[in-house]
Amino acid sequence: MFKDFKLIAGRPVYIQVKDYMKHLIIKSALQGGQKLPSTRELSTLLKVSRNSIISAYESLEDDGFAYTVQGQGSYVSPGAGAGHGGPEAASWSMDWKERISGHALLAEELDIMKRGIRAEKGTISFTSIAPDESLFDLEHVRRAFLERMSVEGNVLLNYGYAKGYKPLIDYLRQYMEHKGVDMRGKDLLITNGFTEGFDIVLTALGKRHGAVICENPTHHTAVKNLKLHGFGIHGVTMERDGIHLGELKRALDEREYDCAYLVPSYHNPTGIVMSPEKRQGLMKLMQDYKVPVIEDGFNEELRYSGAHVAPLIAAAGGGNSVVYLGSFSKVLFPGLRVGWVLADQELIYYLESVKRARSIHTSTLDQSILYQYLLGGNLEKYLKKARLEYKRKYELTLACCKEHIPYASLSGDGGLHLFVTFAEGFNTRELLAACHGQGVIFTAGDIFFTDGTGQNTLRLGFSRVADEDIRRGIEIIGRTARQLMR
Amino acid sequence: MFKDFKLIAGRPVYIQVKDYMKHLIIKSALQGGQKLPSTRELSTLLKVSRNSIISAYESLEDDGFAYTVQGQGSYVSPGAGAGHGGPEAASWSMDWKERISGHALLAEELDIMKRGIRAEKGTISFTSIAPDESLFDLEHVRRAFLERMSVEGNVLLNYGYAKGYKPLIDYLRQYMEHKGVDMRGKDLLITNGFTEGFDIVLTALGKRHGAVICENPTHHTAVKNLKLHGFGIHGVTMERDGIHLGELKRALDEREYDCAYLVPSYHNPTGIVMSPEKRQGLMKLMQDYKVPVIEDGFNEELRYSGAHVAPLIAAAGGGNSVVYLGSFSKVLFPGLRVGWVLADQELIYYLESVKRARSIHTSTLDQSILYQYLLGGNLEKYLKKARLEYKRKYELTLACCKEHIPYASLSGDGGLHLFVTFAEGFNTRELLAACHGQGVIFTAGDIFFTDGTGQNTLRLGFSRVADEDIRRGIEIIGRTARQLMR
Repeated sequence: MFKDFKLIAGRPVYIQVKDYMKHLIIKSALQGGQKLPSTRELSTLLKVSRNSIISAYESLEDDGFAYTVQGQGSYVSPGAGAGHGGPEAASWSMDWKERISGHALLAEELDIMKRGIRAEKGTISFTSIAPDESLFDLEHVRRAFLERMSVEGNVLLNYGYAKGYKPLIDYLRQYMEHKGVDMRGKDLLITNGFTEGFDIVLTALGKRHGAVICENPTHHTAVKNLKLHGFGIHGVTMERDGIHLGELKRALDEREYDCAYLVPSYHNPTGIVMSPEKRQGLMKLMQDYKVPVIEDGFNEELRYSGAHVAPLIAAAGGGNSVVYLGSFSKVLFPGLRVGWVLADQELIYYLESVKRARSIHTSTLDQSILYQYLLGGNLEKYLKKARLEYKRKYELTLACCKEHIPYASLSGDGGLHLFVTFAEGFNTRELLAACHGQGVIFTAGDIFFTDGTGQNTLRLGFSRVADEDIRRGIEIIGRTARQLMR
Repeated sequence: MFKDFKLIAGRPVYIQVKDYMKHLIIKSALQGGQKLPSTRELSTLLKVSRNSIISAYESLEDDGFAYTVQGQGSYVSPGAGAGHGGPEAASWSMDWKERISGHALLAEELDIMKRGIRAEKGTISFTSIAPDESLFDLEHVRRAFLERMSVEGNVLLNYGYAKGYKPLIDYLRQYMEHKGVDMRGKDLLITNGFTEGFDIVLTALGKRHGAVICENPTHHTAVKNLKLHGFGIHGVTMERDGIHLGELKRALDEREYDCAYLVPSYHNPTGIVMSPEKRQGLMKLMQDYKVPVIEDGFNEELRYSGAHVAPLIAAAGGGNSVVYLGSFSKVLFPGLRVGWVLADQELIYYLESVKRARSIHTSTLDQSILYQYLLGGNLEKYLKKARLEYKRKYELTLACCKEHIPYASLSGDGGLHLFVTFAEGFNTRELLAACHGQGVIFTAGDIFFTDGTGQNTLRLGFSRVADEDIRRGIEIIGRTARQLMR
C-alpha cells in the first residue's frame, strides 16, 4: 500500500493526500475502525511534508472519513467505505434505451453534432460559423469581470433573478430602442443564448394549428427545435432579397399557422439580408393573416456595408406581434451563454416562469461581464476590428468562389458564411465525400431545407479559416465539383 | 433639439453622443438625407470635445446610420429611421394570453416566486436557504478566473461542448469516485444547475406508467417540474431517519412507477439525513421492484458532524439504476449555474442531445472558474469556514426553536434550514400572516407536500439571518404560535 501515490501540479499536496486516503477507504483497502499510519510514517511513505499529512488527516475528519482518539492517532470512520458495491449493495442494471422518451430519441436523431464529419488535424474546415477567437479582446473581458467583482462580487455569486441581471436588462432595452423598437408595452427576458430563448418561446406557444411557417432553407437548430416541439414546418422559397412574398401569401391562404419563424438579417444559411421594402410587405401580410412572428436577430451586428436596416420588431411599431430573439454569440463571445427575448410584456411574464422552471436563471457572472463590457463601449471597438477582418475574409471567400466554383447561384450579404447553389441534380454530399478525401470539408446544405431538397447546395463558413486555406480549400472544392460534373 | 443630452459616468462620451444621435434619427427628429450639424457645432451644442463628436460620427457611419460627403460633412442615411412605427408600419396587437400553452400557464401557476410574500426592508426573513454571501471568498474566485483566462481565454469565450468543460468533467468524475461511486459504465453531463439537470432527465424519461414516487414532503421545485412533465406524484411519509420503508413497499405493491425522486441527505424541507441502514433497505426495495432512482445530492457537503454517508449511487455499486444530480449551489456559489448529472453512459448519451437542443452548453466561464477553484483546493478551505459558521447558526436556531416554539416535532440534521411541525389542526399560513404583521416571515410547509397536507408545518432557513434576528424572529414566531393556540 501507499506505493501508487503520485503528485500532480496545481493542487495542494494535503488535498492530494486526503483524496488518496479517501480512495483507499472507499475501496475498503483501509477498513472502518482501522488505525491510520502515524503522520510521521505516512510522511515518509508518501514522501510529502508532515504538515501536509496533518492537514490531510484534519480534512479527512472534516469530511467524516476519519476520527482522532486523543493520544492514540487517527482511525477510519466505521461505515465510511460502506455503500461501495459491497455484498450489501443493491446492484442491478436496466436497459435505459428502453426507457428513453420519444423526445430524447428524436433529439439524438436530429443532433447533427453526432452526425457531422469530425475534422481531423490539418483538415480545412468551412463548417463553423463561430467567431474567430483570435479576434477576442480578452483584456477588456478581464477588466469587465474585475470591475463587476469589485463592485458587487457577493451579489454576482449568489442567486440572481429568472428575468435576468437588471443592469443588463436595462442596457438591452435601450440597445433595442436604438434599433428603432417602440418599447412601450414590451419587456425583456435574459436566456442562456438564442437556443434556450427559442425553446422557451416554443414551450409557451399554444399549439392551435400545430404548424409554423419559415424561410426555406433556414437555421437547422430552429428546425430541430420546431420538430422537437411537434410543430409541422412549412418553408417558403428564398429570393435574392428575402422570402418570396407571393409564395408566402399563397401558403397563408392555404392554412393557418401558429407563428412565423424568420431570420431577416444575414439569414442562416443563405446570408441574405431582407430588403426594407420586403420587410414592410412581409409585416403587412403577417398583419393581414394575424400571424405572430418570432424574429431571429442572431447576427444583425455583422453589417459590412449599406444603411442600417431596422429589425422586424421595429417595423411592428407599437404592435406586440413580434417576438425578437437577440444574441451576441456570433458577434462577441459564444462562450458567454447570454441571449434575450424581447416581446409583449404579458408574454414575457409567462416566459419568465417557464425559464425559472427550466434553469432558475442565466449565469449572473456571464451577464454582468457582458453588461460591463457593453457599458464600457467595447462592443463598438471590437466590432470595428471584427467587421474589418470578417469583411476582408468575406470578400476573399467571395472572390475565390467566383474564380473556382461552378455554381448556379451564390448568396451572402455579410455575416460569417456564403451559400452556394449548384445546378439541379448536382449532389453536395458526394462533393463533400470527395473533398473530405482531399482534406476539405463544408456543410452540405440539405440539412437547412424544410422539404428534403437542397441536395445541390452547401454552406461555407469562413470566419475561422486562414486566408491561404480559404484559397486552397475553395480551389479544391471547385476542381472536385467540375470533375463530378463531367 | 440637442437640449436634452445628458452624460452618464462609466461609458465613453463618443458612444453616448452616437446613441443620442441614433435616438434622434430613429425618432425621425433627424430625417434621412438631412445634414448633421458640423462636428464643431455639435461639440458646442452638446458641450463635449470635438474629438468625441468626430468619433461619434464615425461610429454612426459604421452602424449605417450616417454617411459622409467629402468636403461637405455628414448626412443621415436614407431609411435609417424607417421601420419605426411610421405610417408604413404594420402595427397590430394580439392577445398573447389566448396563445399561451397549458404548460406555460401551469409554470406560472406553480411559480412560488410569484406567489410568495415579498420581504420589505427590515423584515426578518427565514424563507431563503441560499448560502450567506458574506462567506464567499471572492479572492479565490477572482484568481481562478484570471488563471483560466491566461491559460485559455480564447477557448473559454468561444463555443464549448454540450457535455461540458472537459477538465471539470474529469474533476467531477474523480470527485464522485471519492464518494464511493463505481464509475464503470457511467458518464457525466454538465448542466445549468440542478434544475436544468432534473428537467432534462425528466424530458428523456419515457412515460410508461406516468407516475413518480418520492418523499413527502419534498423539494417543491422538483414537485413543480414533475407536474410540468405530467407525472403523477406519490409521496411517502418521512420518518426521523428518512423515508418510511414499509409505506414505500405498500405503495410499490399497489402500482408501477417510472422512477423514484429522492433527497437522501439534508432532505429539503425536513433536513433529515437518511441512515446508512435505511439507504441499503431502500436500494434493496428499488431493486426488487426495478424502479430507477433520481438522487438529488444537492447539499451533501453540508455535513456538520457524524461519519461520511455514501450517496445512493454508491450503494448501487456497479449497477446503473441511479441517476445522480449534483450541484455546489447551496454550498458554494449559486450564481455560477453549474450542476451535473452522473448516470449510465448510454442515458448520458441521450441527455447530451437533449441538453444541446435546450441550451447548446453551460457557460464555459462558469465551468472553468469552478474547475480552477476546485482544483486549487479552495472548496475544502471554504467548507471548513462555512461549516463552522453554518453549524453555529444551526445550533443557535435549534436552541431558539427549543426555547420558544411550541412544536410537535422538529427536524434538521444539518444543512441551512430546520423543519418545524406543529400539532394537527394548527395552521402555519395563519401563523405566517400574523408574524408577517410583526416583521417576521418563513416558508409555510404546505408547498412541500405532495398530498395537500402539511398545513401544520414550516421551514426555517437560517443561512442568511443575523444571530440577533434569529433570536428575535423565532421568539416572535413562538409567541405568536402560542397566542394562536389559545
